[in-house]
Amino acid sequence: MLRAIRGEDVERPPIWMMRQAGRYMKVYQDLCKKHTTFRERSETVDLAVEISLQPYEAFKPDGVILFSDILTPLQGMNIPFDIVKGTGPIIFNPVREMDDIKSITPLEPEKSVPFVGESLKVLRNEIGNEATLLGFCGAPFTLASYIVEGGTSSHYKVIKKMAFDSPAVYEALMNKLTDAVIEYTRYQADSGAQVVQIFDSWASEFSPADFEVYCLPYLQRIVAECKQTHPHVPLILYSSGSAGFLERLATTNADVISLDGTIDMADARARLGMDQAVQGNMDPLHLFASQDFITKKVHETIAKAGNKKHVMNLGHGVMVGTPEENVGHFFKTVRDFRY
Amino acid sequence: MLRAIRGEDVERPPIWMMRQAGRYMKVYQDLCKKHTTFRERSETVDLAVEISLQPYEAFKPDGVILFSDILTPLQGMNIPFDIVKGTGPIIFNPVREMDDIKSITPLEPEKSVPFVGESLKVLRNEIGNEATLLGFCGAPFTLASYIVEGGTSSHYKVIKKMAFDSPAVYEALMNKLTDAVIEYTRYQADSGAQVVQIFDSWASEFSPADFEVYCLPYLQRIVAECKQTHPHVPLILYSSGSAGFLERLATTNADVISLDGTIDMADARARLGMDQAVQGNMDPLHLFASQDFITKKVHETIAKAGNKKHVMNLGHGVMVGTPEENVGHFFKTVRDFRY
Repeated sequence: MLRAIRGEDVERPPIWMMRQAGRYMKVYQDLCKKHTTFRERSETVDLAVEISLQPYEAFKPDGVILFSDILTPLQGMNIPFDIVKGTGPIIFNPVREMDDIKSITPLEPEKSVPFVGESLKVLRNEIGNEATLLGFCGAPFTLASYIVEGGTSSHYKVIKKMAFDSPAVYEALMNKLTDAVIEYTRYQADSGAQVVQIFDSWASEFSPADFEVYCLPYLQRIVAECKQTHPHVPLILYSSGSAGFLERLATTNADVISLDGTIDMADARARLGMDQAVQGNMDPLHLFASQDFITKKVHETIAKAGNKKHVMNLGHGVMVGTPEENVGHFFKTVRDFRY
Repeated sequence: MLRAIRGEDVERPPIWMMRQAGRYMKVYQDLCKKHTTFRERSETVDLAVEISLQPYEAFKPDGVILFSDILTPLQGMNIPFDIVKGTGPIIFNPVREMDDIKSITPLEPEKSVPFVGESLKVLRNEIGNEATLLGFCGAPFTLASYIVEGGTSSHYKVIKKMAFDSPAVYEALMNKLTDAVIEYTRYQADSGAQVVQIFDSWASEFSPADFEVYCLPYLQRIVAECKQTHPHVPLILYSSGSAGFLERLATTNADVISLDGTIDMADARARLGMDQAVQGNMDPLHLFASQDFITKKVHETIAKAGNKKHVMNLGHGVMVGTPEENVGHFFKTVRDFRY
């Protein structure tokens, strides 16, 4: 994966899947019966490691991503939350006013979320040089959307109104979150993550013009400051529904732009140029189709991506209910492929 | 609006709003207390007319769209449904197999949904030449998504699996729906609709390559066959999240491509060319911001769209909870504008 991202010759694209560890796997669901809360599973080193390795053992992906959540670091910033089955994230005291923002504390990951670093260290030891270890974090806007809305949102009314009408409050919150994301990314890299993926999943809720004002400067600062201290740790940037602002995403200088399914791989390559490494972007629903269909889509995607700077992935997280044998077929088809 | 769509000189862009009639208006909510079901309100001529005219009286838009639903014609095709407050559409017998499709009957709108034509006739009389009357319909895939999934869906698993793995079933369903959409569009035009907007709202659930296979041919047939009989009735085509396949949407030959907020208006104009009429595309959330902010966004959008072939609109339906005074300001700002 590292060679592919750098643009060196590789025999085939490396492959991993977003949400690679989790609910679509029976071994995970079995483990959930004993360890019933998401926070226990993601914040206990042994469990987080075990879960992260489940798909590695089953499918031999080229990347192993830590089992965690983008909200995990919030507990280190005095933002209490929970992740409730069937409901999703809940922020107990949504942040709305300047006073709320003052109570947010700087993130010191080694103190508040030490299990993240420890899990990464164990994982790095386990997988050696057989696969690349990925860390991840939420981008400031995506984190802010949960913190301000109080949980999952369908229209992002509160945070967008804050951005439009109370820019000083919005900027204060975003700056604090940007500092935390930088700190957290560096911490993960120091703990063994060889690549870190930044999820600005909901940035596309903004129009491209608004994205430039309300997301881009913070993303640019994250990339710039992480590159200063960790120039050799590639950063992957993902936003769902980014077809309308792909070029703008690339101006963050992230090493890899992770494409979702709303853009054709060939169009993305034409728009971004072959020097921009890309990741993606098969439709997660393709994995519900027949294996012949999956094979065809894998080969189409690779053909459109060209023979360098491409990390194979889905365009979104693998879905609950995806047949595991189809996931296996997806990985095998890519592993068997040669440029 | 008609002059703008044809590319004639106009002094400012015409304006209307998707979901212009409905829940964000207090007069509508008051009416709902007496007439409690969506189907009563949308299928009774006097009520549908009254509701369609509520925003016309309040805001003087340049377009008046019939208060209806994309599912309305399904009752004329032997597909029983309801629209339940808080839940959305429910299809009582989801269509999954070839046998289910055989039971779908051809649409004869004047027999099964005569209230649609009657409402359009009354509306056309009421508004005269003061505004343009718009009809609308759902596109085949968007209709099929409800019919197959059984209602609103978040992942479109069933219909996409049908498309990928059972193309003969999918095509049979889509062909029947395409016939119905053509019939229904012609019927609305014959009843007084001067423009018809086709909503393929969920087409962007497909990757652009899949869109070409599973949506585009049906949309092309609709435009071609409606143009044969009604060459002077412009067709507007809307799909949410279409930034990744804008050029493909334009190959339907629809007169107007309605843009959602995920694409910058200037980028859309550059990609489609100024000869392609476009509609949109302010973020509905902008209408929750201050009036100064709204003014700025209106002027930005118009400036990016250029001085012809632009119909001002939101990028998505106006949202419940939008302050009516802000909607008024949005309309007034556009009406007061001069190129």
